[in-house]
Parts: sequence; structure tokens; C-alpha cells
Amino acid sequence: MSLFSSKTFESFDALLLDQIEDLYDAEQRLTKALPKMAEAAHDMQLQSAFREHLVETEGQVARLERVFGLLNQQPASETCDAMKGLIKEGEKAIDADADPEIKDAALIAAAQRVEHYEIAAYGTAKAFAERLGRREIVRLLNETLAEEKAADTKLTSLAEQGINEEALAAGGRS
Amino acid sequence: MSLFSSKTFESFDALLLDQIEDLYDAEQRLTKALPKMAEAAHDMQLQSAFREHLVETEGQVARLERVFGLLNQQPASETCDAMKGLIKEGEKAIDADADPEIKDAALIAAAQRVEHYEIAAYGTAKAFAERLGRREIVRLLNETLAEEKAADTKLTSLAEQGINEEALAAGGRS
Repeated sequence: MSLFSSKTFESFDALLLDQIEDLYDAEQRLTKALPKMAEAAHDMQLQSAFREHLVETEGQVARLERVFGLLNQQPASETCDAMKGLIKEGEKAIDADADPEIKDAALIAAAQRVEHYEIAAYGTAKAFAERLGRREIVRLLNETLAEEKAADTKLTSLAEQGINEEALAAGGRS
Repeated sequence: MSLFSSKTFESFDALLLDQIEDLYDAEQRLTKALPKMAEAAHDMQLQSAFREHLVETEGQVARLERVFGLLNQQPASETCDAMKGLIKEGEKAIDADADPEIKDAALIAAAQRVEHYEIAAYGTAKAFAERLGRREIVRLLNETLAEEKAADTKLTSLAEQGINEEALAAGGRS
């Protein structure tokens, strides 16, 4: 934040809106980063996983726009400094000089940090919406939360079922 | 990353070391942020939770130093851009102008994002160490991972059991 301004949360609703604005910025940044992740990935399944998650992420942006509607607000972004940092870490993996399999493991490491950020953020927003009795918002956030958790599980499974082992064979201690 | 340099990962060990250096930077940043979070918190239990997690975090820094030793490396930090962003978000909550209870809910929201970042990062580092057969490193990372998960659960419980409700009473729709 700027040293010269601070946020005001007059109500719990304002806090929920702030979370949604943060996520709206985060998801939009992610739609720009995921194609680069897919392009940098070596493993075909990992490429597909990133591309499929891009489509999901675009749907999540649209879902957040419905949440804004339910809050009677125009969609607006609140700069998500954490996602900026997470994507910067992803770029390090994209640009890294490494055997393809090791690079894939680095890309998964970066992507799982992103997924966990989103799991925490949607979990919080959902909890706020629950407390406010906003059932339709809870339902929408829950749909996305389930997708983020599934994406994280998919990445773990790709890492465990092959990519990590390929990376080990390519350059690890053996 | 700098546009003028890129990382090189010659082996899986190099990737593990990079993860540990990222965490070492992240945990050190967190030891500086947690006292401010504790000071900004209104609820006594939340203050205690932040202070207890500070002590744990200091232990986690020491544990990472043991991991560096096991990797025959001097402790070194790799700037953790994600944690920089996460802490910036925490500062927004610290500086926010809000009723104490709403502020506490905002602090918890920021802290849970941090915990999830660490859960993802330690989970990845542990998976890499497992693949490399580095059992003592796995054990150390697992100890921290358990602490991070417990810290996240504690924050959820504080949010659910009272702070969110107090925030709702203070300023939410009722």
C-alpha cells in the first residue's frame, strides 16, 4: 500500500468486496501468465493441465463478475501484490535454464504456490459470505474453490507420477 | 526476475536448494512482519496466535539452517517475491481504518494467505527431498509443514469461533 493512504473497512461487506476485488485482479493476472506456463512446459500432460486451467480461470473471472453483480457493484480490481509476486516467481521458472524435466518440476512448484494462494483467498471470501448469509455468493465461490483444489491435486499427481522422476533421472543424484 | 539474467538448475538438487533459499528469505521476512500483525490485532487470542507463530517461525529459520548444512551449503536467501507481496497485503490490513473486529478478520485473511504459501512451498520442497532420498531433510521439512498447517487451522478456528461474528456485529449486515 501507499504510505500516504490507508484503506477503510466500514463494514464486513466492505471487507468481502475487498477480497473479491483482490481475487478479480489475481485471476486476471493469472489468465496472462498461464499461456506462458503452458508454452514453457515440456510434458504434454502438464501443458494440457495449464491450458485447461486457463479455461477454468476465465470462467472464474466471469464468476467473480457475477459476485460483483450480487454485491451491486461494478467489477473493479484491487492490485493483488501477492499474485504479482507469485507470477514473478513463475517467470523465474519459465526463464530458467534447465533440462526440460527439471524445468517442469520448477513450473509445478510455482503453480502450486498460486493454487494455494487462491485456495486461501477463496476460502476466506467464502467464510465472509457465509457469515453475511449471502448464499448465492457462497455457492459461486465454492464452485471456484473446488476447481482450485482439483487443479492443485492434479499438479501434485503430475509431479508424483512422473515429472519429478524424470527430473531426477535427468539431473538428480542417482 | 531480472530481464538480464536467468537461473540455471543443473540438477534436481539445485532445484531443492533454490526452494530452501526461497523459504529462508520468506521466513525471515515473516519474523519481521509477525510482531506488527500481533500489535495490530485486537483480540487477545489472535495476538497470542501471532506471537506464538513468531516463536515457531524463528525455530523454522533455524531448521532451514540445518537443511542448508545437510546440503553442504551456507545459508543464503533467494528473494521471495511472493512473500514480499503477501506481507504488503498484510500491511494493508495492519494500516486499515476499521473497527477492531473487522480489522482482526482482515489480519486473519492476510495471515492465512501466508500460511497457504508456506504449506505449498514446504510441500514442494519435501516432495523434492523425498525423491532425492534425503530422509533427514524430509523429516525437518515435515516438522515445519505440520506447524504451518496447525497455524492455518488455528486461524480458521479463531475466525469461525468468534472474530468473524464480532466483526459482523460491529459492521456487517444484520
